[in-house]
Amino acid sequence: MRYDPPPYPARLARLREGMTQKDALLILHPKNIRYLTGFTGGDGALMAGPDWLVLLVDGRYVTQAQEEAIGTEIFEFRNRVDGITAVACGRSVEAIGFESPCLCVEEYLRLQEKLPTVALRPLSGALQSLRAVKTEGEIDRIRAAAVIAGEALAAIREMIRPGVREQEIAIELEYRMRRGGAEQAAFETIVAAGANAALPHATPGSRVIKTGDCVTIDYGAVSGGYHSDETCTYIVGHASDRQKEVYRLVREAHDRVIGAIRAGISCGAVDRIARGCLEEAGLGAHFAHGTGHGVGLDVHEAPRLAAGREEILRAGMVVTVEPGVYLPGLWGIRIEDTVVVREEGCEVLTQTSKDLTIL
Amino acid sequence: MRYDPPPYPARLARLREGMTQKDALLILHPKNIRYLTGFTGGDGALMAGPDWLVLLVDGRYVTQAQEEAIGTEIFEFRNRVDGITAVACGRSVEAIGFESPCLCVEEYLRLQEKLPTVALRPLSGALQSLRAVKTEGEIDRIRAAAVIAGEALAAIREMIRPGVREQEIAIELEYRMRRGGAEQAAFETIVAAGANAALPHATPGSRVIKTGDCVTIDYGAVSGGYHSDETCTYIVGHASDRQKEVYRLVREAHDRVIGAIRAGISCGAVDRIARGCLEEAGLGAHFAHGTGHGVGLDVHEAPRLAAGREEILRAGMVVTVEPGVYLPGLWGIRIEDTVVVREEGCEVLTQTSKDLTIL
Repeated sequence: MRYDPPPYPARLARLREGMTQKDALLILHPKNIRYLTGFTGGDGALMAGPDWLVLLVDGRYVTQAQEEAIGTEIFEFRNRVDGITAVACGRSVEAIGFESPCLCVEEYLRLQEKLPTVALRPLSGALQSLRAVKTEGEIDRIRAAAVIAGEALAAIREMIRPGVREQEIAIELEYRMRRGGAEQAAFETIVAAGANAALPHATPGSRVIKTGDCVTIDYGAVSGGYHSDETCTYIVGHASDRQKEVYRLVREAHDRVIGAIRAGISCGAVDRIARGCLEEAGLGAHFAHGTGHGVGLDVHEAPRLAAGREEILRAGMVVTVEPGVYLPGLWGIRIEDTVVVREEGCEVLTQTSKDLTIL
Repeated sequence: MRYDPPPYPARLARLREGMTQKDALLILHPKNIRYLTGFTGGDGALMAGPDWLVLLVDGRYVTQAQEEAIGTEIFEFRNRVDGITAVACGRSVEAIGFESPCLCVEEYLRLQEKLPTVALRPLSGALQSLRAVKTEGEIDRIRAAAVIAGEALAAIREMIRPGVREQEIAIELEYRMRRGGAEQAAFETIVAAGANAALPHATPGSRVIKTGDCVTIDYGAVSGGYHSDETCTYIVGHASDRQKEVYRLVREAHDRVIGAIRAGISCGAVDRIARGCLEEAGLGAHFAHGTGHGVGLDVHEAPRLAAGREEILRAGMVVTVEPGVYLPGLWGIRIEDTVVVREEGCEVLTQTSKDLTIL
C-alpha cells in the first residue's frame, strides 16, 4: 500500500482556482469533505475561502475532526445554518457557491434569511471531476478492497448450490468481507438467482437456488474509505446452450471494452463498444443500463460510461466495466470488473476470473 | 404478529385534512412514502391531491411499485423533476406543499423554473406526528425486531472478554441478527470499550477489551421495516466501586423514567425525571444528550424526549429510554430500552436484562 504525501493542499488549490477574495465555497457532501480534509464524520460542512478553510461540526465530532483534519480550523456548531452564518459573517463573505444537490430547501431558505446580502450560488458537481482521477495511493486502496472482496467470494463460493437461499449467500459474503478487513460492504450485496437475475437491481430474498439457475453476485468491499465493485454470474448444475451463448457474448463485450480502455478515449465511445457488440447479436434491447461508472470514495461517481457522454477518460480514473443481458422472467448475465485507466491501456483491479463457471 | 387491515386509506385521510381542490402534497422521504403506500423502493416521489394519489418512480422500480403500492396510480419518470411537473400540470395543481428537509436545492430550483405559476410551500415534518402513534401491528414488528436483536446479543455475549476487539463483536452481532431474520442492522452497531465507552457515538475499532472495561453495546435490528434500539453496558472481569455506583444511578434514572411514562405526560417532563436523578448525584454534566427518541420505520423519529419539549406522549407511541453517564478519558455507562406508551404506563419491548452484569 503506497501512502501519498498528504494530498489535501493540492486538492484545495485546485478547488480554489478562480476564487476571489470575497468568495466562499460551501462543501456539504461528506465524501467531498473527506476528500478535502480527511474528516470521516457526518453532518458537517466545509467552508473554503481563497486563503482560509473552516470545518464546521457539531459537538459529537469535535475530537474526531481535530484528529483527522489536521491543521484545519474547527468550528463547533449547535445548528449547521447558524454555524455557516457565523463563519460567513466573520470572514465578510459576499458570495457562497454551495453544493446544490447536498443542501435541502429547509436549510437553504434559512440561509437566505440569515444572510440576506450574500449571494448563494448553486454549484452542481463541483468536485466530481476533481475526484475522478485517482492517485496511486487511492488506487491501492481500491485494489485492497477488491482483494478482500474477491477472497470472501472465493471462500463462500461452495455455498452456491441448489437449495440455498439468495439471502443466505449475501449475509455470508458480507460477513466474510468484514471479517477479512472490510470497513463495510460497498453496497447492499446483490445475489439474484433464476428470474431474479433478470432484474439489474434485485434485492436478495428467500428464493432458493435451483439447478440451471444463473446466479448473479454483484458485490464489493470498502477499505480505507474506497470501494470495489465486481459482478460474477455463475450457472448452477448445468448451463443451457442459450445461457452459454449469451455468457460468451457478454464476456466478449466485457473483454472488448477492457481491450479498448486507455487514456484519451471518450466515455461514450467505450459504451458504444459494449453496446455494439450486444446489438450485433440482437441483444441490444436486453442491455438497458450504462456500461460502467467511476468508483472511489463513493461506489458510483464520475465518470459515467454511457451513451452520448463525451467526457474523455484520463489516466488514473477508476471505472467499472459491466455489460449485461437480462431476459425478463427467465434469467440474466452480467459480468463486471473495476479497472484503472492507464496511458496505454487499463489494469483490472478486481480479482475473480470471469471465465464461464458452472458450479 | 398481528396484521392490521391495510392502514393506508386512514393515513392518507389524515394527511389530506384541510386540503383544497387545487392543492397537492409532495412526499419525498422514502419512509413516509412507504408509510402512506407500502412501497419500499428508493428515489421515488408521492403526490397526493384531495382525491387523487400518484406514486412516481423510475424504470427500475415500476414492477415493485405495482406489487407493493396496490391500487395506487404509478407514474414512470426518467427525471424526477420532469415527472412531478407532468403530474402537477395534468391535475391543474396551483400549490404544492413539499417536504423541505427532503428536497435538494438543485431539484427545487428546477421545479420553480418548470412550474412558475405554482406556489411551492415548504413543509417541515408534515408526517412526523402522523407516524409517531403506532398501531398494534407496527408495535408487533418493533417487538419482533427487538427479539431478533436480543437473541443475537445473548448468542455472542460470551465473546465479550479480555483480548477481543470491539469490531469483532460488532461484526458477529450484526451477522447473528441477520441470520436470525433481521433485514439489516438498525444502525451501525456501537461496541465501545474502556475510554471509548465515554463517547456516546463511538465507532467500533481495533481497541482490545481489557479487564475492568465498561463495554457499551448499542444495537438494534430491522424487521418488517421497523427498528429496535437497545443499549447494554457490561463490565468485564471486575467492577470498581465507582463503576458500580454510577451503574446503579443510571439504572435508577432509567427505571424511574420507565415508571413514569404513560399517556399524558410531556416529553420534557420525562427528560426532567432522568436528568434530575443524575443531577442529584452530581452527574448532570456527564449526561449530555436527550433521554430518548421515537422509533419506528426510522430508528430516530418523533417524539424527542428532551429538555423543553412540550409534546404530550400518547398511547401507541414507541420511544427509547436511554440515560447515560460519560466520564471523558475513563469510561461510560448507558442503559437503553425501547418501550411503547400505554394509557396506564408503558411496556418494554426490548428483551435484555438491565441488571448490572460483570462478565
